[in-house]
Amino acid sequence: MSLLVTGSIGIDTVETPHGRAADVPGGSAVYFSFAASLLTPVRLVGVVGEDFPDSFRRVFDGRPIDLAGLETRRGSRTFRWHGRYEGDMNAAQSLRTDLNVLGERGPTIPPAFRDSRYVFLANTHPALQRDLLAQLTSPKLVVCDTMNLWIETALDELKQTLAAVGGVVLNDGEARLLTGCNNLIDAGRAVLELGPRFVIIKKGEHGSLLVDGPDLFVLPAYPTREVRDPTGAGDSFAGGFMGWLAAHDRTDGAALRSAVARGTVTASFTIEGFSLEGLATATPAGVEARLEHLRRCTRFE
Amino acid sequence: MSLLVTGSIGIDTVETPHGRAADVPGGSAVYFSFAASLLTPVRLVGVVGEDFPDSFRRVFDGRPIDLAGLETRRGSRTFRWHGRYEGDMNAAQSLRTDLNVLGERGPTIPPAFRDSRYVFLANTHPALQRDLLAQLTSPKLVVCDTMNLWIETALDELKQTLAAVGGVVLNDGEARLLTGCNNLIDAGRAVLELGPRFVIIKKGEHGSLLVDGPDLFVLPAYPTREVRDPTGAGDSFAGGFMGWLAAHDRTDGAALRSAVARGTVTASFTIEGFSLEGLATATPAGVEARLEHLRRCTRFE
Repeated sequence: MSLLVTGSIGIDTVETPHGRAADVPGGSAVYFSFAASLLTPVRLVGVVGEDFPDSFRRVFDGRPIDLAGLETRRGSRTFRWHGRYEGDMNAAQSLRTDLNVLGERGPTIPPAFRDSRYVFLANTHPALQRDLLAQLTSPKLVVCDTMNLWIETALDELKQTLAAVGGVVLNDGEARLLTGCNNLIDAGRAVLELGPRFVIIKKGEHGSLLVDGPDLFVLPAYPTREVRDPTGAGDSFAGGFMGWLAAHDRTDGAALRSAVARGTVTASFTIEGFSLEGLATATPAGVEARLEHLRRCTRFE
Repeated sequence: MSLLVTGSIGIDTVETPHGRAADVPGGSAVYFSFAASLLTPVRLVGVVGEDFPDSFRRVFDGRPIDLAGLETRRGSRTFRWHGRYEGDMNAAQSLRTDLNVLGERGPTIPPAFRDSRYVFLANTHPALQRDLLAQLTSPKLVVCDTMNLWIETALDELKQTLAAVGGVVLNDGEARLLTGCNNLIDAGRAVLELGPRFVIIKKGEHGSLLVDGPDLFVLPAYPTREVRDPTGAGDSFAGGFMGWLAAHDRTDGAALRSAVARGTVTASFTIEGFSLEGLATATPAGVEARLEHLRRCTRFE
């Protein structure tokens, strides 16, 4: 079933205790589509500037990622981010952010993409998320991400967006800030009162929590020994999650759990390398092998 | 199969965002034995002063906890601790610690207890842990706890103790301090190089990790909405863990996993009340019901 992602496409420079990667592919829509394309075809919608390197376009070659929604805007420059992770690498410190084309008008969803059934609205201004949503004719499941900036500066807009989507993906800090609840189960329930049917709260190395109506699902992170660069882990998680749902055309509770597990293992590849290095080594068989390992690591009598 | 615990018995004053409990029962051996007694009889070994209240002795009434190893030392005073939890309550701030009788010579294991097969050496000086171990004639599984203080001030002694036990229970901070590894799987493997067959690394609200030779087991915490007082959670976990192993007389890998799950749900009762309030409400049926809930919350296809 058709899967569409809208989000950022950027040029990243990332420093971690394991090294530095300068001017490499990044952005939520890139990580998402790479991850989801392991499971199902993806339609990508986003905007870059005319400085966007051809070599970055070629990273999509050979993957079922439809770039008909990738706009190259004349006279604009591509989004750039420079971040650093230290210590336990749980949070990035942004050293520099050049919004560039992301500070202009948003992308347009091409007519051929408007019938998309599964949709992920990666983090951007919640009003833009709603604009994008309004361009779709018959979405079956829309899931959005957000960030602290919008919780703090555009809360009313964000609440309108949350009331219009089926699911939301947040990290623990965002869930606490949005709801004022310290306990994450309470925070999850409070998010559902804003409208979505389900919320996934990501806890980084501590795994994730799915609150789906009255149902709870808790899953540890995939036990990875080598974390080289956490950038893109959340969007890769979302890609594996939405990719599995779209591939199976299911949105029931058991499907959400299965999809969270796929998101978890997909993200584990991402963090093992800088930029797309780790995720590029993942294959459908590799995802299933890690899933089986995760099952073995979580099974008890 | 016989289960013995050696550890502290104290008088606690605890402050959390949910209230304050003054001069209430506390101590590792108390939480451990309460927890384990839900699953199997327990032999308790510890020392109190002559100020130890009769009412505190009566909290053990009606539970299969043998107090033949509870020494009341003339002229000595009972261990007292005053702590406070703030914010996310992940770590206690010790406002005052009066070691009192715990600063004197250790307890003696009564002859009738020396044939104990399952043994938990709760946190104390590692040299004392080895003295206690030497009093046992035929232990099948000995598990110990420790703390940052001994890692920092008695590392050689601690290494000798770790080389003499079958398992060790640590929290994440202790595991990192002991091994210098930030990644907890690496830390677990490094602990095993010191001697034990297995290590359990407790991550508080994020659950626990069992490293058992080459085998890994990761389990989230029981999804509790009300955390009133985390004091004793770790010792209650150990009590549920060792209690299940002793009750089934099993130490194989699958048994360790089952026991970790029982420890997890047992600890969930402890943190719902101050002192022993929460744990006192737990029953074997209640533990099994939460275990089934934990299974439902962690299951995926």
